[in-house]
Amino acid sequence: MRTHYCGQIRSSHVGETVTLCGWVDRRRDHGGVIFLDLRDRTGIVQIVSDPQRTASSYEQADKLRNEYVVKIVGRVTPRPQESLNPKLPTGEIEIYALEIELLNQVHKQLPFQVSTTEMETVREELRLKYRYLDLRRDRMTANLQLRHNVVKAIRRFLEDEKNFIEIETPILTRATPEGARDYLVPSRVNPGEWFALPQSPQLFKQLLMVSGFDRYYQIARCFRDEDLRADRQPEFTQLDMEMSFMSVEEILNLNEELVCHVFQKVKGIELPRPFPRLTYAEAMERYGCDKPDTRYDLELVNVSDLFKDSGFKVFSGAVASGGIVKVLPIPGGNDAISNVRIKPGGDLFKEAAEAGAKGLAYIRVRDNDEIDTIGAIKDNLTAAQKQELLTRTGAKPGHLLLFAADTIPVVNKTLDRLRQVIAQQLELIDQNKINLLWVTDFPMFEWNAEEKRLEALHHPFTAPHPDDLHDLKTARAQAYDLVFNGVELGGGSRRIYQREVQEQVFETIGLSQEEARNKFGFLLEAFEYGTPPHGGIAYGLDRWVMLLAGEESIRDVMAFPKTQQARCLLTGAPSGVDEKQLKELQVRSTYKPKA
Amino acid sequence: MRTHYCGQIRSSHVGETVTLCGWVDRRRDHGGVIFLDLRDRTGIVQIVSDPQRTASSYEQADKLRNEYVVKIVGRVTPRPQESLNPKLPTGEIEIYALEIELLNQVHKQLPFQVSTTEMETVREELRLKYRYLDLRRDRMTANLQLRHNVVKAIRRFLEDEKNFIEIETPILTRATPEGARDYLVPSRVNPGEWFALPQSPQLFKQLLMVSGFDRYYQIARCFRDEDLRADRQPEFTQLDMEMSFMSVEEILNLNEELVCHVFQKVKGIELPRPFPRLTYAEAMERYGCDKPDTRYDLELVNVSDLFKDSGFKVFSGAVASGGIVKVLPIPGGNDAISNVRIKPGGDLFKEAAEAGAKGLAYIRVRDNDEIDTIGAIKDNLTAAQKQELLTRTGAKPGHLLLFAADTIPVVNKTLDRLRQVIAQQLELIDQNKINLLWVTDFPMFEWNAEEKRLEALHHPFTAPHPDDLHDLKTARAQAYDLVFNGVELGGGSRRIYQREVQEQVFETIGLSQEEARNKFGFLLEAFEYGTPPHGGIAYGLDRWVMLLAGEESIRDVMAFPKTQQARCLLTGAPSGVDEKQLKELQVRSTYKPKA
Repeated sequence: MRTHYCGQIRSSHVGETVTLCGWVDRRRDHGGVIFLDLRDRTGIVQIVSDPQRTASSYEQADKLRNEYVVKIVGRVTPRPQESLNPKLPTGEIEIYALEIELLNQVHKQLPFQVSTTEMETVREELRLKYRYLDLRRDRMTANLQLRHNVVKAIRRFLEDEKNFIEIETPILTRATPEGARDYLVPSRVNPGEWFALPQSPQLFKQLLMVSGFDRYYQIARCFRDEDLRADRQPEFTQLDMEMSFMSVEEILNLNEELVCHVFQKVKGIELPRPFPRLTYAEAMERYGCDKPDTRYDLELVNVSDLFKDSGFKVFSGAVASGGIVKVLPIPGGNDAISNVRIKPGGDLFKEAAEAGAKGLAYIRVRDNDEIDTIGAIKDNLTAAQKQELLTRTGAKPGHLLLFAADTIPVVNKTLDRLRQVIAQQLELIDQNKINLLWVTDFPMFEWNAEEKRLEALHHPFTAPHPDDLHDLKTARAQAYDLVFNGVELGGGSRRIYQREVQEQVFETIGLSQEEARNKFGFLLEAFEYGTPPHGGIAYGLDRWVMLLAGEESIRDVMAFPKTQQARCLLTGAPSGVDEKQLKELQVRSTYKPKA
Repeated sequence: MRTHYCGQIRSSHVGETVTLCGWVDRRRDHGGVIFLDLRDRTGIVQIVSDPQRTASSYEQADKLRNEYVVKIVGRVTPRPQESLNPKLPTGEIEIYALEIELLNQVHKQLPFQVSTTEMETVREELRLKYRYLDLRRDRMTANLQLRHNVVKAIRRFLEDEKNFIEIETPILTRATPEGARDYLVPSRVNPGEWFALPQSPQLFKQLLMVSGFDRYYQIARCFRDEDLRADRQPEFTQLDMEMSFMSVEEILNLNEELVCHVFQKVKGIELPRPFPRLTYAEAMERYGCDKPDTRYDLELVNVSDLFKDSGFKVFSGAVASGGIVKVLPIPGGNDAISNVRIKPGGDLFKEAAEAGAKGLAYIRVRDNDEIDTIGAIKDNLTAAQKQELLTRTGAKPGHLLLFAADTIPVVNKTLDRLRQVIAQQLELIDQNKINLLWVTDFPMFEWNAEEKRLEALHHPFTAPHPDDLHDLKTARAQAYDLVFNGVELGGGSRRIYQREVQEQVFETIGLSQEEARNKFGFLLEAFEYGTPPHGGIAYGLDRWVMLLAGEESIRDVMAFPKTQQARCLLTGAPSGVDEKQLKELQVRSTYKPKA
C-alpha cells in the first residue's frame, strides 16, 4: 500500500512521488494551507495541502484530526529556506499531497495526547489502560525498538560468534518446592494435579548439558508469584545460558565479550575489558554490599581492631559480641551534612535505622586534623589511635566520618545504604559512566537463623571452589554476578557434576537422601549417566534494557506489563471466570469476599 | 577446556595437537590397541590409544566405558589407507591420545544405547523418561539443530529483509471465553480471580497494530487445554506475525518469500514461486477438503446434475434433499481395488463409514468403455449419461469410479479420505515432492447446527471480502491458509478495522453489543482510536519443523514434550502440590479419587 516509511524521506527523494501511510500526529491550518505531521514508527514527515497547488487533496486534508489514519500520495519537495527543521531527520523536505485517503478515524476523545510534540506527563494508570496509545508515543516506541535491538544483538553474537543453540524449554512444568512462590495451573486431564510455571529454566538447562547441547541459550519467560515491589513483574524475561566444558575464566570472558558486543551494537559504546573483579569478601569489606556501584569512590574502612578495647562501649561492645566497627569517610562531608541529619530524627539517621542500626556515631575532621565528636568517643581515643584512624581512612580536614558498630550484616547494610544516599545527594555519581564489575567467589552457604541450618546462597547445585573442598561449610562457590552501576545484571555459577560432591552439599544443608530424591530426583538421576562439567548464567533482560534506555521501571520496557498489584489494566486480567470452566478443571476458589 | 569440536577435525589438521571434550560413543579393543569413538553435538571422531605408541593414555583408555565423559589431548594423524571411512566427515583421520582425563562416569546401567551406531528402536515412554539421553542420539540432536536453524532463518529474514520487530506479549493474560479451553492460573494477590494462558497472541498483536508497530512477529508459546490427539501438545510454538497497511496480495507475497527463504537456508531447496492458489470453493469441489495434498492428481468430479433425476434413488435422493453426488476416478483402480474392499466389511467401506457415508457405490470401466456395476445403477444410466460420465471424469478402461452421495460435508469428507488412503496404497505420492499451496477466500461463517446460528469460521475479527459486503451471511473472508503436502502449515486473515463492519459481523453471528463488549471490550475500545488496516498469519512452528525433519510427531522436534496424557515423563509434571501452596492461593481441588 505504501512506497516508503515516513521517517525515511530525505532530500535525495525530491521530485519523487511517494505513497505513505500513518497517523496524523498534528494538523495545523496556516491561512488556508494545511500542514500535517504524518507519523509512523520510523518518525515524522511534513505533508502540505494547499488549495492553490494541490486542490485534489485539500477537501480531505481539511477533515483530518489528530490520530486519524491516512494514506497519502504526494510529491517530495524541498522546504523553503525559512522552514528548514534541522531537528527532524526529514526536516529538509516536505510532501505536497496529491491524494489523501482516509483509512480510519478516531471516534472518541483521546484519553491523552499522543503527538510527539506533547510533553504532557500522563498518569501511569492511564498509560497502562490505553497502552496501545501509549505505545504510539516516541518514548515507548523507542524503548520497544531498543529492546528488540538488544535481543537481536545477543542472539547474533551467541549464534554467529559462539556456536550457541537456542532451545525452548517448557512453560507448563513441575512445581519446585524451593525459592519464590510458583504460579500453579490445574490439570484438567489429570485432576487433582498441578503444573507450575517455571521460575527459571535452571533444571532443564542443566539437563540439556547432560544431553550434550554444550552451548545453550534461550530468551526465556520466567514467572515468580512474589509480593510485588517496584521493579518486579509476575512474568519477566531472562537471557538464559548454559555451557559445558568451560572454566569460570572462560565463562566470564565469553560473557564480557557478549556484553561488550551488545553495548557496541546498540549504543555504539566501546567498554574497556577485562571488567574489574571483586571477590564477594572484598565487595562486602569495601562497600558493604555484593553489588557495589563503583562509579564513585566512597569506600568503607574496617576499624574494629582500633576500637576493640575502646572505652566507648558502643564500639568495643559491638566487637566483643562478634560484630564490627566500620567507617564511611565522606570528603567535604563537614560542610555538606549537618549534625541534625545524623542525629535521631534526621534523614540519615532514619536510613541507618531502616537498615537495622541503633544509631550513627560520627567524627568531623577539622583544620590541623583536630577531631570534633561527642566526648565519649573523643575522650576514649588516644593520639595514636586517632592518627591511625586518619591514616587508614585517608581523612583530611573537611571529612566527615560516619561509624556503624553492630553485627556484620547490620554494619554493612547501614553503611552501604548511607553510601548510596550520600553519593546521590552530593552528586558524586557521573551519570555518563558505565561501570561493569564481576563479583565472584560468593560463599556456598549462609546461615538461616530461623531454621537453624546452613542453606545454599544460590541453589544447591552450585559448585564449591576446588580449593575449599576440605571444609564445605565455609567454602566459596564458583559463583559470579555481573554488576552494572550498582545493579545486578546477571548471575550464575559453575554447577556440581560429580555425585560425591553433590552428596556432600546435600549433607551440609541437612537434606537427607530421601528428601533430595523427592525434590530433585529427576535431575540427580540424570547426573548418573555421564554429566559434563558445566556452568551458566542468567541476565534479567527487562532490567538490562531498562538501564540501557535510561528508564527507572521495567514496566517502561515491556509492551504489556502488569501493575504492582499484578493486574493488566488493559485487558482486566486476572478476572473472574465461568463456574463451568472451574467445574471442568475440578477446582474451586475458597476465597470469601468480605461483605 | 578444548580447542576443537569432535566433528570439525579434518585432514588439514594432521600434525596438530588438539584438545577435545565429549562422550565415549563406543570403545573397541583391537588386540591391545583401544579405539574410541568420541562424540559431541557436532559428530564423531576416532581416538586411538596404543600401549606401544601412546602409553601415557592407555591405562586411562582401558577404563573407559560407553557414555563416559572425557577430555582428550591428542595428535591428529592420517588414517591408514585400509581404515579410511568415507561415510564419516572425520573419516580420513584419527587422533592418537596423548592424555585422557576422565571427567565423569556413568554410574548406572544405561536404559538404552545412545551410540550413533545403535539402530535399536526405543519405546517412546523410555525415551521421554530419559529424555536427556534420548537427546544425545543423532536423530534428536539433528532435529533440535534443525529447529534452531529454522527459527534463525525466519528471524533473520523478517528482521533484515522486511523490517519486522519482535515484541513479547504476556503469558499471564485474560481468559477468552471462546475457542479451545484455556489453562487457568489462580491469582494469589487477587484471590478469586484467574489468569489464563494465551491460546495465541491474537488480541495483543492486533493491539500492536493499533500502536503503530506495523510489522510485528514473535516466536510465541501458545497453550490449549484440549483432549489430546496424536499431533497436539498442551503448549506449542507459533510463528506469529501481523502487518499493517498491506493488501492480501502483499501479505501472501511476503509470506511466500519467507517460506522460500527458510527452505533455501535450511534445506537448500529452491521452491518455485508464486505458490499455486485455490479458493476454498475450488478446493472443496476438486478435493473435498480445504487442505488438499496436491502431490498427486486424483480429483473429485461433481456429477449431481447427471444423477438428479436418476432412477437410482441413492443418487437422486441425495440431490433431492439438498446433497450432492461426487465421484473419485481411480486410474488402474480396477486391478488394484477389489469389490470386497468396497463392500460392507471392506477397508475402504470402513473409511467411508467413518467419514459418515452410508455406503460406497462404484463403477468399473472395462474394455471398450463397457461399465461394470450393480444393476440398479447400470439400468438407470442412459447411454448419453454414461458417455457424459466418462468424459467428465476422464475415465478410461481400467478406471474405478467411487461414488459418494449424501450431504455436501459427508460426500466431501468421504471422498477426501478415500483419496488420501488410496493415494498412499497405490503409491501415487512422490515423497520427494514439496507442494505448497494457498487456499483463499474461506467463507466468513459456518452454520452451527447445534446452536442454530452462524458462527465465525476463523474468528469474528476476520475481514469480509470487499465484494461481498452486501450479504455478509454468504460472504467470503479475506482469509488464507498455507498448505504443505496436505498439511496446514499456517493460516491468517486480514482483520476488520472499521467499526461499522465489525458491528455488522457481530449482528450476523447473533452477538449483542453488550455481549461483544463483555467478550472483546478492550479490543473494541482500541478500535475507536485510529486503527490501521491490518492482517496477519500464524504458523505452527513445531509442525513446520516436523515436516522438514521428516518426522511424524511434533514430540520429536521438541526438547521436552508431554505425552498424549499431557504428562512430562521426565519431571513428573503435573504433580500433587503442598496443601499450604493451595491455601495461600485460596483454591482447592474438588477431585475425589475413586476408591
